[in-house]
Amino acid sequence: MDPKAAYDELTRRSREWSTLASCAALLSWDELTVMPTAASAFRGDQLGLLAGLEHERATDPKVGELLATVEGSDLVADPESPEAADVRELRRSFDRKTKLPRALVEELARVTSAAQHEWVAARKGRDFPRFLPWLDRIVALKRREAECVGAPGGDPYDALLDDYEPGASASRLSGLFDALKAELVPLVGQIASSETRPDPGVLRGNYPIDRQKMLGELVAASIGFDFDRGRLDTSAHPFCSGIAPGDCRITTRYRPDDFEESFFGVLHEVGHGLYEQGLDPDRFGTPMGESVSLGIHESQSRLWENLVGRGRAFWTHWFPIVRRLFREPLGAAEFDAFHRAVNRVEPSLIRTQADEVTYNLHIIIRFELERALLSGDLPPADLPGAWDESYRRDLGVVAPDVADGCLQDVHWSAGLFGYFPTYTLGNLYAAQLFDRASEELGDLDASIRQGDTTPLLRWLRDHVHRHARRHTPAALIRRATGSDPDHRPLIRSLKARYGPVYGLSGAEVPS
Amino acid sequence: MDPKAAYDELTRRSREWSTLASCAALLSWDELTVMPTAASAFRGDQLGLLAGLEHERATDPKVGELLATVEGSDLVADPESPEAADVRELRRSFDRKTKLPRALVEELARVTSAAQHEWVAARKGRDFPRFLPWLDRIVALKRREAECVGAPGGDPYDALLDDYEPGASASRLSGLFDALKAELVPLVGQIASSETRPDPGVLRGNYPIDRQKMLGELVAASIGFDFDRGRLDTSAHPFCSGIAPGDCRITTRYRPDDFEESFFGVLHEVGHGLYEQGLDPDRFGTPMGESVSLGIHESQSRLWENLVGRGRAFWTHWFPIVRRLFREPLGAAEFDAFHRAVNRVEPSLIRTQADEVTYNLHIIIRFELERALLSGDLPPADLPGAWDESYRRDLGVVAPDVADGCLQDVHWSAGLFGYFPTYTLGNLYAAQLFDRASEELGDLDASIRQGDTTPLLRWLRDHVHRHARRHTPAALIRRATGSDPDHRPLIRSLKARYGPVYGLSGAEVPS
Repeated sequence: MDPKAAYDELTRRSREWSTLASCAALLSWDELTVMPTAASAFRGDQLGLLAGLEHERATDPKVGELLATVEGSDLVADPESPEAADVRELRRSFDRKTKLPRALVEELARVTSAAQHEWVAARKGRDFPRFLPWLDRIVALKRREAECVGAPGGDPYDALLDDYEPGASASRLSGLFDALKAELVPLVGQIASSETRPDPGVLRGNYPIDRQKMLGELVAASIGFDFDRGRLDTSAHPFCSGIAPGDCRITTRYRPDDFEESFFGVLHEVGHGLYEQGLDPDRFGTPMGESVSLGIHESQSRLWENLVGRGRAFWTHWFPIVRRLFREPLGAAEFDAFHRAVNRVEPSLIRTQADEVTYNLHIIIRFELERALLSGDLPPADLPGAWDESYRRDLGVVAPDVADGCLQDVHWSAGLFGYFPTYTLGNLYAAQLFDRASEELGDLDASIRQGDTTPLLRWLRDHVHRHARRHTPAALIRRATGSDPDHRPLIRSLKARYGPVYGLSGAEVPS
Repeated sequence: MDPKAAYDELTRRSREWSTLASCAALLSWDELTVMPTAASAFRGDQLGLLAGLEHERATDPKVGELLATVEGSDLVADPESPEAADVRELRRSFDRKTKLPRALVEELARVTSAAQHEWVAARKGRDFPRFLPWLDRIVALKRREAECVGAPGGDPYDALLDDYEPGASASRLSGLFDALKAELVPLVGQIASSETRPDPGVLRGNYPIDRQKMLGELVAASIGFDFDRGRLDTSAHPFCSGIAPGDCRITTRYRPDDFEESFFGVLHEVGHGLYEQGLDPDRFGTPMGESVSLGIHESQSRLWENLVGRGRAFWTHWFPIVRRLFREPLGAAEFDAFHRAVNRVEPSLIRTQADEVTYNLHIIIRFELERALLSGDLPPADLPGAWDESYRRDLGVVAPDVADGCLQDVHWSAGLFGYFPTYTLGNLYAAQLFDRASEELGDLDASIRQGDTTPLLRWLRDHVHRHARRHTPAALIRRATGSDPDHRPLIRSLKARYGPVYGLSGAEVPS
């Protein structure tokens, strides 16, 4: 078979197993939004069957042969070509999948499925010892996974991280995160000791859910989410699923007495959705039609949620509209008070409720702890103590018990090690991208003030979305912004935005 | 392999290909209810892939070997046993599927897909000649299908009918339908010449959609539809899909100025849904967990829609409730006027809008015409003339053009020949079942008057639902009612219910 024919057959196969995955994605969306409760047991059978078929196809030895035929051929001589990117990424994923013994995959699936139930019970009972044996088993299994897929002699953490953020390494992350933390901890301290205390009261009150839904759809459509190619629904935990070409679905959740949760949730998921909708539908199911990493994905959600959505420019346009929709809580509210309220900072215990400034400290703590768990430096039994110690040191707060402490997140019980740092990478990337877009587009705030985010979206389409998996995440950032992944733009952005809110004297923007 | 092991492997396989079909059913439900418009092209790819995988598994030669191992063994010696029914029905379906050459299946899929688009255009343009070449091709293809799957020398119509109503034959249907028509035509004539003209005005007016939805859910739940195991949604054309164990979804459509369409649509689909929810979830994916035929399915929907839902007993309970919900149109309405309005009869052109009395004449006309098309007695080019002639003769109405005439239904363009008669079989079965249930349960009306349909549902569960495919449809009816399929119970029921509405002198109930 000649390389071109092999490449075509490869992408045809990739599209086929991705089509199976897209069916599963629709079933999962359905499960989380509208599925009748009694359907849940069988939904597992459906998803299990589809996952098995997908795995069977993606690990077919024939795929390896086709890859070998294309690799080294003229077709992929230019490493920047779509063909080269497709082949490079298909190889990565084929090797990873075929290196994992089926027995390990099945044991991981079985153990993490049971462990998630145990985690729910342990968290509810505030009972770490109940969860401990499961954590022990999962850490051991993840070490074996890392041994199977990682480079010989490499850091096991890197092998896991690579699944979510291709090309990233724990040692580079460590440098980046240390530098970030060195700036964040004093900034949080300054804010905590400021006399300014934004009042969130204005964000509580009578916020009828039907109007929140209307506003959510309006804002989503206004910043570019295409409802002919997507939906916005309700689920217990917000998510975005890029199910298939022309079919990207986001969700949020509503409380009738709270403005923030659904509104910023929608902005966040719309950011993910815009990325998905910016991928080339004609390349669906192949690397050049896919998002590149969790970190880059998160950069898109956080950019819209925080850098756009908490800014004065954004609210200059939206506050008058929002005030007309919710007259009871907002009729007499002042712009500045509202803007301060959506930008308040407070060291807290729960990651998912953390503000933009303290959020990354939650992540860095998890990154350090999970590295130590994997390397063996931290025995799982010592996790609660290490957790509390980190929180006390970095955030100045201590959880009353493990439910709000080391058992608060589902990730570890689900076997997700190496996943947390992508949240902070997303925040770093977002600040870098927003910075560069502002430089290139001139006064970005001026268009945002007029409710027009089209130039920004166009810039992101051009510099991020359309590149799909052509480059590694770090290379994509380098090409888009001219810099390596860097903590300074985020720190500058936080100081520039939160300094004025909290009247910080030392909040001059550093160069 | 011993017969028991072969049987277990057979049902495991059947469950597997049915699980693929259930994924496709969920994707189809999604397509018809909530899917974003731009997702439609790729949805075809997803469904095509799943259908191909299902077909591959269901026609695997290994299935034939397993069947041969079980057939004739002690395991299936008792023809009434679940094992015997499973094996008999799996054989039926395996033979049918493997007898059809792949080329014919693909050509049928291709031609009917194109023909449905042509049908839409031809109907819109009132242009029969545009549709004629497609009808020609489809009739020829369906003849070839009948040749492939039918008994040698048999009526080709029977071979197609058998796919929808196992064991039925055109000659038996013909006798049944002739007898039915001989009674219906004069009954419709009597009604048409009655001086009573029920006024539908009370059913038009301000019927807010949100309240119609609320009422639909309330009625559905009241008569036994389990919302933990199902949903009610909105779609352009109402349907019921028994997607998977614990997951049966029905739909309806709403008009803000009309009471009837959604209300009776919900009752109809709930009837289908109750049947699906009455099947054994543990036998999902095998014949003993499946509905037996379209005719029996339709008997369940029509029983609830018409025999329960248009009755005085039903409205004695529901009218006061409905009147409170819709005060503007119904506040001053009288029970009798309302009851007459939902039981009005009028010969009309369109099958889907036909009342309960004239409906079967629409079906019998189609049955006669499609038999003639298949046998060659009616050249497709002559269809419009033959259609108008039948309508003039049996219903006394003639369509102004083919859009409301022979192009009104999608069925033939979709290759559905032999499907129409199951609608009328459903009506006949429904009357027989309702009759027998009334005999066995004593005063069924008394409980329905109190809003309690539990005894009736329990009877249907016991005599119809739980038997799944254990018997042929005709045998099921015989066992449940003590009689073969018969037109007389329906005629008696129509005369007993519509005679009083129209003050018919000759409406004494015949024995």
